[in-house]
Amino acid sequence: MISLSLVGIGTGNPAHLTLQAVQALQEADLLLIPLKGEDKADLAELRRTILAQHPVQGRVVEFELPLRDSTDSDYVGAVERWHDAIAVAWRVQVERHLPQGGRVALLVWGDPSLYDSSLRISARLGWPVSVVPGITAIQALCAAHAIPLNSLAAPVQITTGRRLREGGWPQGAVTVVVMLDGACAFRHLTPEGLQIWWGAFLGMDEQILDHGPLAEAGPRIEQARAAARAAHGWIMDCYLLRRDPASGDDGGPGA
Amino acid sequence: MISLSLVGIGTGNPAHLTLQAVQALQEADLLLIPLKGEDKADLAELRRTILAQHPVQGRVVEFELPLRDSTDSDYVGAVERWHDAIAVAWRVQVERHLPQGGRVALLVWGDPSLYDSSLRISARLGWPVSVVPGITAIQALCAAHAIPLNSLAAPVQITTGRRLREGGWPQGAVTVVVMLDGACAFRHLTPEGLQIWWGAFLGMDEQILDHGPLAEAGPRIEQARAAARAAHGWIMDCYLLRRDPASGDDGGPGA
Repeated sequence: MISLSLVGIGTGNPAHLTLQAVQALQEADLLLIPLKGEDKADLAELRRTILAQHPVQGRVVEFELPLRDSTDSDYVGAVERWHDAIAVAWRVQVERHLPQGGRVALLVWGDPSLYDSSLRISARLGWPVSVVPGITAIQALCAAHAIPLNSLAAPVQITTGRRLREGGWPQGAVTVVVMLDGACAFRHLTPEGLQIWWGAFLGMDEQILDHGPLAEAGPRIEQARAAARAAHGWIMDCYLLRRDPASGDDGGPGA
Repeated sequence: MISLSLVGIGTGNPAHLTLQAVQALQEADLLLIPLKGEDKADLAELRRTILAQHPVQGRVVEFELPLRDSTDSDYVGAVERWHDAIAVAWRVQVERHLPQGGRVALLVWGDPSLYDSSLRISARLGWPVSVVPGITAIQALCAAHAIPLNSLAAPVQITTGRRLREGGWPQGAVTVVVMLDGACAFRHLTPEGLQIWWGAFLGMDEQILDHGPLAEAGPRIEQARAAARAAHGWIMDCYLLRRDPASGDDGGPGA
């Protein structure tokens, strides 16, 4: 009998860990640390730091994740096939290291609910799953800038870089948070009336922040992002865009 | 010199506290616990439990929050005046208990960025503010149901009960999270093609969950919510609505 705990570990600051997460790690019989290739070695390193700070009884196993076929033009189909392959990789590790069954913990960057595939992959395995929530990049971004996510009683849209590029500013939106954006999709927006708050390597020692009117801060951020990516070999970032109340489109009733 | 730390403490489970939050509480010279009247005595009790589990050096002070004028038909104006009054109440406590200055920590339910007024109130005081992110009700809801917040590569809309009631289903939305809903606004939606995941007292011992097609689960939730509210004297809940992919409106490009 296998049970799986998906443990959100926050976005890079080992102190993002919750007490519940520490307990889940300490109760596990097997802790899986996926490796995603050299680019993201820093992410595996964070997981190692966390486990060094909170000694666990269970066995800690690092394993290589299969790669997604990035040449496949069927994006959703390629992601589905990739998740199938990851589920197989999890099962192989669990059968190898926990042949009698037990509790498996998977350390998940951020929170398992937000743009993370662990829950969808788990569903392929049929094991009972519990989730320990963790600090998301959105919360780390707002905390670093000391800004609210929402304007007073107003809605928030969370979306992807791809959607922002293809669909433009979401109709009626006041605040838009953009995740998974590898190509500065904010460049495709008309910047007038928009403010941006951007953060990279949130919670980590390397954290970089910028904010201001999109027309001014946008080009600065593009440059800083390219430089940081070149320096580190990878980057993880997100941003919040807010329409000025005076700019006319204030999001409908109640704004 | 006063500095203010807004410390997110999660949604009711003392183990939602992050290691960063524990440290911020332990470094504070003054810890403020606002009381909101008898109905929410349980919330003050949670803060006391947390401080009992993590003994602090600083002085712990409970104080009564001013009440919002709920008869004022100017909702936003009434909220602004209420925040003015709360800022005065904070300043009174700080000047009384920390006349020489120092570090003040305010324990904030959930995360200070999400439908919380602490940052807006802080802005009235001119003190330097730092934010420690905490687990939000949205994450506690997704974790309790073991569901992702977003569908694959799809957007998420966070909104209020009032907006859902007045504006209906947001155009193009796939997933809608509804906060601050005192009156089951989902009743005003056409339920076909919608699933609901609901949670009350998330993270607490009293936690209640339900989910299913809105047509079936909606009436059950209305009943359970009314009963729980009567039993406890108050309720704090939120829910996630998701449109079935087959129901036609899948949120635009990339879905």
